[in-house]
Amino acid sequence: MKQNMVVDAPVLLTFCADFRRMRKWLKQSDAPLNFDNFMSFMIAAIDATLVSQNVAIAAEAKGLGLCYMGSTLANCDKIGEILELPEGVVPVVGYSLGYPAENSEIRDRLPMDGLVHHEVYQDQDDATIEAIYKQRETDGWARYMSYPDLKKMIEESDVENLAQVYTKLKYTRESHVDFSKSVLSYLEKQGFMNHD
Amino acid sequence: MKQNMVVDAPVLLTFCADFRRMRKWLKQSDAPLNFDNFMSFMIAAIDATLVSQNVAIAAEAKGLGLCYMGSTLANCDKIGEILELPEGVVPVVGYSLGYPAENSEIRDRLPMDGLVHHEVYQDQDDATIEAIYKQRETDGWARYMSYPDLKKMIEESDVENLAQVYTKLKYTRESHVDFSKSVLSYLEKQGFMNHD
Repeated sequence: MKQNMVVDAPVLLTFCADFRRMRKWLKQSDAPLNFDNFMSFMIAAIDATLVSQNVAIAAEAKGLGLCYMGSTLANCDKIGEILELPEGVVPVVGYSLGYPAENSEIRDRLPMDGLVHHEVYQDQDDATIEAIYKQRETDGWARYMSYPDLKKMIEESDVENLAQVYTKLKYTRESHVDFSKSVLSYLEKQGFMNHD
Repeated sequence: MKQNMVVDAPVLLTFCADFRRMRKWLKQSDAPLNFDNFMSFMIAAIDATLVSQNVAIAAEAKGLGLCYMGSTLANCDKIGEILELPEGVVPVVGYSLGYPAENSEIRDRLPMDGLVHHEVYQDQDDATIEAIYKQRETDGWARYMSYPDLKKMIEESDVENLAQVYTKLKYTRESHVDFSKSVLSYLEKQGFMNHD
């Protein structure tokens, strides 16, 4: 599952949290500078994500296919360099876009009653958690084993179930802590961590 | 512009970054615990935001109207208390939902060429920034002055233009720094800042 869709897809869209424009406008308007803090980043990141999904739905309605990349934020510093992003701008989400060569099936989803809570959060007990993930355990494991390179990696490791594939092979503590630190440090570099 | 839509609307939806379920499943599956860091929060926050916009578009297609509230994340700690959110869960976006009593006009938008960049970021010069915000300067100012309570607040202050309304009255440095700190501290409380 190499992400060669990034180089193969005709279009690659990156949606950025962007306060550069507005900070310049504030300066021109002799207004107090602001929007250089974490709250501002989150507001801009949420807005960029909402726009990305509007564009995604519009594209799909026209018969296009797309694939969100979890790597956009995780590699925001490297992507920021490639896109020549100035201070005030952070890449948040992105996807490749094109007419799909195949019509793939909808991926396994958790059942709705594991996702929706009414009035207050319904904390789930062990049996419920097991039931929610039962289908995914089977389908997800089968899906991973259908990719020869993932199958090999799983067989050569000591992982025994899907949850262990996730946190022993795919999303390790080390990689996630590294990503966390590099995103936070990029936020500082791009001027979103001024809290004095 | 009091947010009485919150109490008046028949439905209020809150979309949360939620790793509680998955952390429990990892534990049950004897998998290394993870997803207790900033990267994990961001992934969950982005996913929650994407879902919120899917639901929003579906609702609008059925004739419903909705209003996103910027206050959901800003007040995540208080909302978390009301919704009885356990560790691993953070409210990110939310909106009220109902059949609208009026058909309001589309709000002023920045022109597209101020928002879309090709290949690399096109840093905008002063004249371009002025041109991008020209329409909003006039329309936005007129809109604020059409609300009696905002008009009064503007007239009693020393603000001279729309940019100053934003950062002197609406989104002050103090309020945004406070929100930033309280969101970051809630992320820590909910178990999303373990980077050792």
